[in-house]
Amino acid sequence: MNNATSSPPAARGPADHEVRAQIVVAATEHFSQYGYEKTTVSDLAKAIGFSKAYIYKFFESKQAIGEMICSNCLREIEADIRAAVDGVDRPPEKLRRMFKAIVDSGLRLFFQDRKLYEIAISAASERWPSAIAHEECIRQMLLELLRQGRESGDFERKTPIDETAAAIYLVMHPYINPVILQLSSHYTGQAPAQLSGLVLRSLSP
Amino acid sequence: MNNATSSPPAARGPADHEVRAQIVVAATEHFSQYGYEKTTVSDLAKAIGFSKAYIYKFFESKQAIGEMICSNCLREIEADIRAAVDGVDRPPEKLRRMFKAIVDSGLRLFFQDRKLYEIAISAASERWPSAIAHEECIRQMLLELLRQGRESGDFERKTPIDETAAAIYLVMHPYINPVILQLSSHYTGQAPAQLSGLVLRSLSP
Repeated sequence: MNNATSSPPAARGPADHEVRAQIVVAATEHFSQYGYEKTTVSDLAKAIGFSKAYIYKFFESKQAIGEMICSNCLREIEADIRAAVDGVDRPPEKLRRMFKAIVDSGLRLFFQDRKLYEIAISAASERWPSAIAHEECIRQMLLELLRQGRESGDFERKTPIDETAAAIYLVMHPYINPVILQLSSHYTGQAPAQLSGLVLRSLSP
Repeated sequence: MNNATSSPPAARGPADHEVRAQIVVAATEHFSQYGYEKTTVSDLAKAIGFSKAYIYKFFESKQAIGEMICSNCLREIEADIRAAVDGVDRPPEKLRRMFKAIVDSGLRLFFQDRKLYEIAISAASERWPSAIAHEECIRQMLLELLRQGRESGDFERKTPIDETAAAIYLVMHPYINPVILQLSSHYTGQAPAQLSGLVLRSLSP
């Protein structure tokens, strides 16, 4: 076959995904110091030494960068919750750990990185895909945990599992949603223990 | 006895409490149209035809007026909740009604009177005495209801009642606090039924 029309490989810079990752790292650093809301793409470009046009080649908007940063944060939180749940055997204890990990990891993000928390707040209030995916991930973990507990005989099976899961998710939601979590922070000391106690009583066979 | 030192009754205007009530009525009207946050005491004075100094004779600040308005609103909500609870006999049904009345009356205030809702938001976030008293009132209603349910045999008695009450209050709190309620309004359709179902399962003897 004649492949004269294909162009010869050009001298290439870093691959696209590397540049994207580089922008995300620099933006995380920048936002965590100066805040997300007040920073424009121009500010960001200047700070990381790229042209604005170059950044727009890789991300269509500031929100698209924020979305990547947010996904990374939320994936860390999910990993923390999963590690807490996987660290014990019995479903009731898994549920207690899950509650505690949700509150602890949310508050850690809030107190350690107030400026990045701004991104999580935008993501939650504007329902960015990363925030929706995070909620869905926690819902799935909960459902899986309920299945295990029903199988092991630790949890009752009379109530339809979807109903049980939806209600428990509603109890967890104020601590998952970062906007609500920051408003409830004076409640969070005792909350995980008290709420998981209540939920476990509701699940007893 | 010689009572020459007592002064003769002066020609008197309306009593203080009447003027206070008049100011509160006018301020409620004004705030509900123009909002609480943006209105100053000067604006209010002009609108209701009193001097600023005269208003300050009766209320030490705008917040003191807001506090009266807020108390009135919250007392209406409490009356609604109490009526809902008193309207049925069995404690489990009382609890269902209580949940529903908390959400319904909060949302009614939110949707019908957005501008007055601003006051409730300030009261809740700045922990005004009216907001604290409201939370305490609901806590007391809940405790009373739990006592009735334990007495009638509808609710379990193993868990210390304070622990049970604190945990259920935490479940109710996002729907009592107006700042959180407005953020959760997309959840509120099913929430009262799902959450009271969960709470009742946790209370079963």
